[in-house]
Order: sequence, then C-alpha cells, then structure tokens
Amino acid sequence: MIRRMNELQTFLTQQNSVVTRELDRILPDEGTRPARLHEAMRYSVFAGGKRFRPALCIAACEACGGKREDALSAACALELLHTYTLIHDDLPAMDDDTLRRGRPTCHIQFDEATAILAGDALLTLAFEVVADHPHGGSLATELARAAGSRGVIGGQAEDLAAEGKTPEADLVEYIHRHKTAALIRAACVMGGICAGADFHPPSPENSGATGPLEKLASYGENIGLAFQITDDLLDESSTVEELGKDIGSDRARSKMTYPAVYGTEQSISRSEELIMEAKQTLRLIKDASVLNDLAEFVGCRKT
Amino acid sequence: MIRRMNELQTFLTQQNSVVTRELDRILPDEGTRPARLHEAMRYSVFAGGKRFRPALCIAACEACGGKREDALSAACALELLHTYTLIHDDLPAMDDDTLRRGRPTCHIQFDEATAILAGDALLTLAFEVVADHPHGGSLATELARAAGSRGVIGGQAEDLAAEGKTPEADLVEYIHRHKTAALIRAACVMGGICAGADFHPPSPENSGATGPLEKLASYGENIGLAFQITDDLLDESSTVEELGKDIGSDRARSKMTYPAVYGTEQSISRSEELIMEAKQTLRLIKDASVLNDLAEFVGCRKT
Repeated sequence: MIRRMNELQTFLTQQNSVVTRELDRILPDEGTRPARLHEAMRYSVFAGGKRFRPALCIAACEACGGKREDALSAACALELLHTYTLIHDDLPAMDDDTLRRGRPTCHIQFDEATAILAGDALLTLAFEVVADHPHGGSLATELARAAGSRGVIGGQAEDLAAEGKTPEADLVEYIHRHKTAALIRAACVMGGICAGADFHPPSPENSGATGPLEKLASYGENIGLAFQITDDLLDESSTVEELGKDIGSDRARSKMTYPAVYGTEQSISRSEELIMEAKQTLRLIKDASVLNDLAEFVGCRKT
Repeated sequence: MIRRMNELQTFLTQQNSVVTRELDRILPDEGTRPARLHEAMRYSVFAGGKRFRPALCIAACEACGGKREDALSAACALELLHTYTLIHDDLPAMDDDTLRRGRPTCHIQFDEATAILAGDALLTLAFEVVADHPHGGSLATELARAAGSRGVIGGQAEDLAAEGKTPEADLVEYIHRHKTAALIRAACVMGGICAGADFHPPSPENSGATGPLEKLASYGENIGLAFQITDDLLDESSTVEELGKDIGSDRARSKMTYPAVYGTEQSISRSEELIMEAKQTLRLIKDASVLNDLAEFVGCRKT
C-alpha cells in the first residue's frame, strides 16, 4: 500500500508538471493586452493546485488505451474551468473568502471586477481549448453539461441558498453531487473520450452491459462524492497552514456538509463505501491500476 | 429604401420569434432545480432583446446557401452569450447599472450571487448548444475566441480600466473592436460555418482572393464597430424611455466613446464609412441582400 501510494505520488507529480507546462503555453502571457486581466488569470491558475482533475482525465485516457498527449488539452481545460469556479466562489457576493491555497484570493489580490472577468475568461478559454481536439464536439458537450446550471453552477446556487438552513440529507447530496462530483465525473469521461472510447448504454442487445464511458462516469461520480466528503471532514479538523485556506468556515456559515448531517463517523464510512464501489466499477476496464490507486488516494488525502 | 427597411423589419421580427421560441425550448424551465437560477436566466434572456446577433448569423448562413435551421442553434448560442455579457457588465463591481431594457437589471431583480451564476450558466449553455452542431468544434472555437480575454472580455476589462481617463483614439478603437465588434463579427462567421463555408486565406495560389468566411469576418467587424458608434451617439441623444436603460451614463462616468474622442459629426461620418465598406465586402457573396440591408439598419437604428 505505501509503495503504491509512493508510485501514485510520482504519477501525480509528473502529470502536475506536464499539465502546468501546457497551461503556461495556453494562457496568454502577462504582456498580452489587457495585461492586468491576464496577470489575474495566471495568478489563480498557477497558485499551486494539485491538478487532481487533469490527473484523473489523463489516467482515464490511459486506462482506455489512449496516450497522455491525447488527453492533455482536455486535462488543461478541466483545470481552467475548475480555477474559474474557485475565483467566482470566493467573490464577496458568494463565499467572500480572502485566502485560497495560502495566498490572497483573486479579488483581494486584484479587484472584484478583474476577478469576475478572469473567471469568465478562464471558463471561455476552457472551451476554446477542448474545441480544438479531434473529439472537440463531444468533449465540449460533456464539459458544458457538467459545468452548467444543472451541474457545478446548480450546486453552487443551492449551496448558497442553503446557508443557515438546517442540514438535510437530500440537500447535501444534491449540492455535493453537483458542485463537486459533476466535474470529477466529467474529468473521467472526458479522458475516455480522448482515448476514443464510446458510450454503450445498457440494452437487451448487449445483455445490459455498459461501455467504458458509463463505467468511468460511475467511478467518477463515486470518487467525486467521496472527495467532497473528505473536504468537509478536513474543513473541520485541519489548520489554516495545512489547507492554505480559511478553515472551520463551513461550520461558521452553517454550510450544508456531510458531517453536519451524518456526524464524523458515518461520513468516514460513507466515503469508504463510495471508494469501494468506485474500485469495483473498474474491474472491466483494461488497465485501471492508476485509477484504482487514485480512488484510494481520495480517501486518505490530508490536503 | 423605406420599402427595403420595411422588408428587413419583417425579417427581423420573424427571426426574433423563431429564435425566441428556440431559446424557450433550450433553457431549463423555471421548475427545474435550482429554480431561482433558471428563473434569473430566463428573466434576462426574455427581456425583449432585438436578437440582432442571431438575425445576423441566420442571414450570413442564408447568404452562403445554407438554411435557417442550419444556423438556429448557433444563433441561440450567440444570444445566450450576449445576454451573459450584459448581466455581468451591469454588476455593481462593473458598470453598476440598475436598468436594462426598461426593467431592473438581473442583480437588482434577484441578487448579486444569482446574477453572477446566471451569467456563468448562460455562457456555459452557449457552448453546450453549439457543441451539438455538426460543425460544433469550429463553432465553439470561433465563439470562444470572440468571447475570451482577447475578445469581448478583453474589451470590457480595458473599458473599466479606462474610466475617467482622457479619451484617446487608440483606446476607444481597442475597446469597441473587442467589446462589441468581436461578437458581431463572430455571428457572421458562425453563420457562414453553419452553411458549410470554408476559410480561404489569401495566397499566391488563389491570387490573393479570400473565401466567404473572411468576407463575412470583415463585414461583421465593420458593422460591429458602426453598431457601437451608433450606441455611443444614442447614449448622448436619447431618452430613458427610448432606450430602456440609463442614458448619458457614458458621459457621467467619462467612458471611452467615439463622440468623446471625435465629436458627433465625425463619429457619424466614421459610422457611414464603415457601413459603406461593409457593403462593398459583400459584393462577391452569393445572396447578400439581407446582409446589405442589415448594414444599413445598423446606421439608422434609433434604439
């Protein structure tokens, strides 16, 4: 187990460096007009993120027989899109956070208008980047569905609306599945699309069997939910130094979290269950060892 | 001339109704969770816009031998994207406007967080809608380039940064070309793409001739700039009732406008020149009569 987690750490570090280099190539440099806007976009993208979604996308592509290069643009698009959600979530009208990854949030470092525009521009750039891929249409569809009003944005809207309300199982499930799991699921499916994998919805003709994209979707949904439960648990137990962002803030704002509904113990076992389910889904995928390890990583991450 | 403008008015009214019906089909209804978010998206999309960009897109498609149906999804995407720019531009951190198309702006009617998210969701939906088209990849590329940090968003960033500065020719040109002309240009090019037209960059082999998409791009750029100059002029001369938004606000905020740099007379002749140029570009396009009339419409519009 320790050896495998070390190998996974090497994989994550390598992908992080490849993706970061590609993001540097994709993003307009700070001399490009309007300079302050491009500076803000780069400030947030190069804030030391783990690049977890890109790594998942690349691992899913390789698991379906594709090459890392096939998934690189989709991986970068996922990180651009993820970064935009962080910038907009931190805005004064939303979560009003001042610290992110150990540094001032975008609207603190620059100003509110620049932060709104930098988020808009990163979202737009994500689509520009995937549109260029040979499977550009399918990738853009998957990304837009995951990110839209019935995906990530819907989750954020319900999260804001739920502040201060009594924690409730249905609501926390909706928020976590939309705000977090939707994009992690999309990362997995997009990796499969990059490898040329197809959807095979279960039908009487194929005896109810599903194709690799459905398996990746189910795997992604499960680890995505586990990822958010771990996030909730870390928000309660970590220090500012460990997480690099304001902590205990969920409780202070009466946010809808798993521990608030189920308590710590039950949240931990739910997360373990989800990771187990995710690993079982992988059984019929060609070379799923990295995805398998990534699922375990989600359960034991500390930051 | 009056007869042709009446015919054009009929064309615009027809397209407006077709596009509005399709937008109604595309947008999640107000019962779809999160209800308030979808209500806000619909509130802004169905605020009685002229649907000028969709009409241009459809006219460009028909001019290149395509059918209206071929361009309908791209036309809707343009309107969704345009609506998002209006919502975000009106935000307190940006232009802080309270009135748009005769009604309270989105953040006044709902709240700031909902307005930010509604804008994000409309931008995302625009890409979901084009991605589904048989030419989805090319359409998404064109839309993203026009809308991104080197397009519309770049124009808005420079516009905000320029407030209060001495009006300057270079700067107003940059702002108008990016903030307004870029999307109008994209509307024309996307219409051509929907009809299956190609780019033919000038080369020694084709004796420097360009293809229909370059012609549409040049036409769109010119009428787009003329459109914004007319907007600047209307902001100075109209009443709130005529425009349905706060007027004289450009001057009050020392916005970078054409009349502020060149005066009214010279702004009018620049707009006429651009419209003339746009019409000349159309000469080699198959059936360009509607595009021709749309160019004239831009010069004489009153709202």
